[in-house]
Amino acid sequence: MRLNITSSTSSDGVVEQRFSLGEIPGVLWTPEAATGPRPLVLIGHGGGQHKTSPRVVAGARDFVTELGFAAVAIDAPGHGDQPRTPELDRAFTDMRTRAAAGEPMFELVAGLHTMLAERSVPQRRSVLDAVAELDRVGGGPVGYLGMSLGCGLGVPLVAAEPRIRAAVLGLFGALGLAEPAARITVPVRFVMQWDDERVPRQKALALFDAFAATEKTLHANPGGHGDVPEFETRDAVRFLARHLS
Amino acid sequence: MRLNITSSTSSDGVVEQRFSLGEIPGVLWTPEAATGPRPLVLIGHGGGQHKTSPRVVAGARDFVTELGFAAVAIDAPGHGDQPRTPELDRAFTDMRTRAAAGEPMFELVAGLHTMLAERSVPQRRSVLDAVAELDRVGGGPVGYLGMSLGCGLGVPLVAAEPRIRAAVLGLFGALGLAEPAARITVPVRFVMQWDDERVPRQKALALFDAFAATEKTLHANPGGHGDVPEFETRDAVRFLARHLS
Repeated sequence: MRLNITSSTSSDGVVEQRFSLGEIPGVLWTPEAATGPRPLVLIGHGGGQHKTSPRVVAGARDFVTELGFAAVAIDAPGHGDQPRTPELDRAFTDMRTRAAAGEPMFELVAGLHTMLAERSVPQRRSVLDAVAELDRVGGGPVGYLGMSLGCGLGVPLVAAEPRIRAAVLGLFGALGLAEPAARITVPVRFVMQWDDERVPRQKALALFDAFAATEKTLHANPGGHGDVPEFETRDAVRFLARHLS
Repeated sequence: MRLNITSSTSSDGVVEQRFSLGEIPGVLWTPEAATGPRPLVLIGHGGGQHKTSPRVVAGARDFVTELGFAAVAIDAPGHGDQPRTPELDRAFTDMRTRAAAGEPMFELVAGLHTMLAERSVPQRRSVLDAVAELDRVGGGPVGYLGMSLGCGLGVPLVAAEPRIRAAVLGLFGALGLAEPAARITVPVRFVMQWDDERVPRQKALALFDAFAATEKTLHANPGGHGDVPEFETRDAVRFLARHLS
């Protein structure tokens, strides 16, 4: 399957191209006038967000302008421009109903992630295949960056995908992820919020514990799910630069 | 009390001066040809080590050559060139006897730190007073860097000393330190080892929890007490650069 580029814009040294790969909607960022292979960072957005949410775009532009890397993001199943399906609609409705009835939100969200990952992992792997065919990306090393839903879908992806050489993950916990995490041996940066209202502290620590990587670092900061400090973003760029350059 | 400089050597852009301040033995590192005030990093060595242990010297030289800062270290009580006292000798002997009898090492070490801190905190504060009188250091912002014993003595120091604006601490736990930690409001980087054979994981997490700082970050890496990765050292330099520059 080949990438179908549907639009291309350029600003401040960064080319942003929207594409479709079959029914998968995505965006690719590369340096202007780029030729030849370069490291690629695959960015997984958070729950309720999409491939061009502000944090995704800002991160992608950092990788391109500071490191000369390429970056790519696709919508997660049930998000952004992905086709809706009756099965996904039922799952989202069911989750909201059970949450309103007082079921623990973390468990409900973890269950949803597991379901979404079944679709998301093969979609992302096929995007890596297609992007590697472009001469300005090529088959170089790949990094992964994803928090919250981006972690829930990222852990099984990183476990399954040998092209991914390093990953920044976080804002989620062990439920359903300990098994794939135990298959991850590439360097991992794991970011958690010490007072996360959505992810129990012990579940986050247990996920960090589960990674099989010999180089793994936990970064914890005070505050809630949405309060990750700006310096962690800078640090994620340095971490992936160190492992992919 | 004035600093009495007893030797001065210079290599690779760094002037290293041994000094005594009363009975306190110390070392000061500054850039060659430095004039005028600059940020200062006070480095606290680990247990059984001293003011010119390799890690202390390497860290001090990094602050001088990379950032143009000054760095200073003194021996902890009972360490290096500090005068021995019957009281300290008894305390060390008592600790070894009780450890041999199977008492938990972490509790014994924490008790020793509490005793050493009573002497160390006023000594370090008087060194900050004296060093500020030097025109090539001056009364600029101060950072603290100390792991293990350097953390056990550092937490009460940082709590007591308003000149210290940021601190890198770690490799120790909450016993005896939660109260001073709860008075620390400057930015803290706390480094722990996930499999530390000397510091129980929950004690280290509890110490991180206790800091009152709104900017505090926990960094945890796999491995034992002596296995802190090199990249954490690099990161500590960047952290103090960010807060003191």
